[in-house]
Amino acid sequence: MSATPIFVLGGAQTDFSRSWSREGSDLAALLAEPVQGALLDAGVDATDVEVGHVANFASEIYCGQGHLGGLFVEADPAFVGLPTSRHEAACASGSVAVLAAMADLEADRYDVACVVGVEMMRNVPSRDAVANLGAAAWVPFETDGVAMVWPEVFAALGDEYDRRYGLEAEHLAALARSSFENARRNPNAQTRGWDLPEHAFEEDERDNPVVAGRLRRHDCSQITDGAAAVILASPEYAEEWAASHGLDLEEVPRIRGWGHRTARMSFADKLRDEGPYVFPHVRGAILDAFDRAGVADVSELDAIECHDCFTTTHYMAIDHFGITAPGESWKAIEDGTVFADGLLPVNPSGGLIGCGHPVGASGVRMLLDVAKQVRSGAGDYQVDGARTAATLNIGGSATTTVSFVVGTDD
Amino acid sequence: MSATPIFVLGGAQTDFSRSWSREGSDLAALLAEPVQGALLDAGVDATDVEVGHVANFASEIYCGQGHLGGLFVEADPAFVGLPTSRHEAACASGSVAVLAAMADLEADRYDVACVVGVEMMRNVPSRDAVANLGAAAWVPFETDGVAMVWPEVFAALGDEYDRRYGLEAEHLAALARSSFENARRNPNAQTRGWDLPEHAFEEDERDNPVVAGRLRRHDCSQITDGAAAVILASPEYAEEWAASHGLDLEEVPRIRGWGHRTARMSFADKLRDEGPYVFPHVRGAILDAFDRAGVADVSELDAIECHDCFTTTHYMAIDHFGITAPGESWKAIEDGTVFADGLLPVNPSGGLIGCGHPVGASGVRMLLDVAKQVRSGAGDYQVDGARTAATLNIGGSATTTVSFVVGTDD
Repeated sequence: MSATPIFVLGGAQTDFSRSWSREGSDLAALLAEPVQGALLDAGVDATDVEVGHVANFASEIYCGQGHLGGLFVEADPAFVGLPTSRHEAACASGSVAVLAAMADLEADRYDVACVVGVEMMRNVPSRDAVANLGAAAWVPFETDGVAMVWPEVFAALGDEYDRRYGLEAEHLAALARSSFENARRNPNAQTRGWDLPEHAFEEDERDNPVVAGRLRRHDCSQITDGAAAVILASPEYAEEWAASHGLDLEEVPRIRGWGHRTARMSFADKLRDEGPYVFPHVRGAILDAFDRAGVADVSELDAIECHDCFTTTHYMAIDHFGITAPGESWKAIEDGTVFADGLLPVNPSGGLIGCGHPVGASGVRMLLDVAKQVRSGAGDYQVDGARTAATLNIGGSATTTVSFVVGTDD
Repeated sequence: MSATPIFVLGGAQTDFSRSWSREGSDLAALLAEPVQGALLDAGVDATDVEVGHVANFASEIYCGQGHLGGLFVEADPAFVGLPTSRHEAACASGSVAVLAAMADLEADRYDVACVVGVEMMRNVPSRDAVANLGAAAWVPFETDGVAMVWPEVFAALGDEYDRRYGLEAEHLAALARSSFENARRNPNAQTRGWDLPEHAFEEDERDNPVVAGRLRRHDCSQITDGAAAVILASPEYAEEWAASHGLDLEEVPRIRGWGHRTARMSFADKLRDEGPYVFPHVRGAILDAFDRAGVADVSELDAIECHDCFTTTHYMAIDHFGITAPGESWKAIEDGTVFADGLLPVNPSGGLIGCGHPVGASGVRMLLDVAKQVRSGAGDYQVDGARTAATLNIGGSATTTVSFVVGTDD
């Protein structure tokens, strides 16, 4: 396996703490803001963009609006006439849109693509916002009569770890604490200014009530409005772009490798393998990304942005990346490896729990965050000297898994 | 412009007259049936498929189900672990999924892709099924207080033709009649067995009542359950496949060229250009497809499958393909050019009006139909000696436009 490197010239995201409907703003505006921000960040003129890709999970349900490729065109007058499309893989929508854009560039169809991930969720009552997420599970088998499908599924992921290896509540709590702490340094994180109650990370029925099974309020990511965009380019365009921006091409972040696998739809069907990894296909997708990137193992990474829709997913990411042996993620928590000042920070941005999780945007936001890390552009949540970083974005109960390895030099 | 030819090794579609919910069957089954049929038709083993692409417009609304890449995996045990994703561009979803699959093959990521378009619509009351389609327009600007957004938009398309060039009801009626007649020869067409009333194509308030403006019942395509799948392959794989199937590669249908453009979201914004073509971007997408295919003009085509969501759209396709000068589509109707026994049959399958229009499936069904035509595999609706054929698939009010040119030799 190998991969044509696709360059990330720049990007932007919205402030995930904003409620766009409360501001009287709409989906088109939410989509457009980071697109304009990404063009500005990359120093790329809108007329240079040749194709638009939109990631979105379920704007049909949240907003009654599909066909977001059409809204992409409305983000800039120069986009009228561009080829566009919308891509979906539940919470991994952002990554499959990036993969589609990369394929366009790798196939030499175009030189510059804009990918924007977007989700508006706070325009509906919280209960509906949560219920709508059920569409990412297998309906109705996994959803009928189930109050909170995702907390229940990811609590069951914790149960499976517990059954196989043992799992302590304190380790999940430590991941939650880390996510909220990291988010305080991220100016776009939804929770950056939250005043958490005294016992936010304890088994406290007032300050941290049970949501489902072993998962409590602060083990869960947030319902969020948000969008994130990146400008991707072919090696040829990136070379010219770097020269005209006075940069060494070596300093420009590029997607060095990727992995993409889809497991069976239901959570129960995923657990039929009794191998060392709870989700062998997640491990496989990560190894595919390493392989395409020419990365031997996780020790070559300086930072990771993973899909902590819940703390149990974060816990899963740690051993599946190979930071520890399978089932031993707790070791990397106890020795601090995965925290902001550790050897391999996981979710220095705050992750989904700290940043918020606008479903269709999260995969793009993660890619943007690792690109920022490897170009030393992550501000107060910068991992010192990061040169190589990876993402792990999952959809549903890890039905769709995508991992990217991003770096500044080969 | 040029394009790597991507080969269509085979395909299948469901019988569009079936109501899957009435049969007690579900979306996963609807998706799986043509996938299995396509594998059989192509003589390709499921283990050879390397990537799955799903086209769907709005299963979130119709079925409460998103994440159809996960359901793709359920279509065959060999698919577990494959990379999959779902693509959407309203009624052009099928074509953008095909474009994404082609890019994967052109980029040399994979050699064999399966693309399946699917839509279940008859599981909800007709009124809801129609209302749900509003999500392809710009919500709420084009939908608030509008009873039937699409009949109204495409009636207005007729009005625009009338304003610019004149438009007679008899010509639209002739297209409707042709669509239903052609569908009688298509064993998968929803309307093949319909007993149409005596005055079905006349201005008759009982047999053909007004739906919106100048559009009457039989000017409109049908709410349909349906799915269609194709097996696409790289030139390398196709060559080996042809040899092992005792075929000349020259005889294998291939996508020779494509065009893909996106116009502004609202119908009103599309009409701001007073050039010769009502939809200049549709003309542009067709010319892009011709250009990539090395086709000089429409005279090289032997058949067309166009997106006749309404007869006015069919009418638009005729002049936009260049069969007549702009505004003169009526000439190709009066002289019979576009009918089944004419010089250039348009919608020999029956089109959306005759076949039915399962939104996410239609673009794939069109590609399958032109592939059948150029390999002389269209049975009773075969266009004699067809070697080159094209599709025109549009989403929304022609917001997204995709055209493919398919042929058997270069």
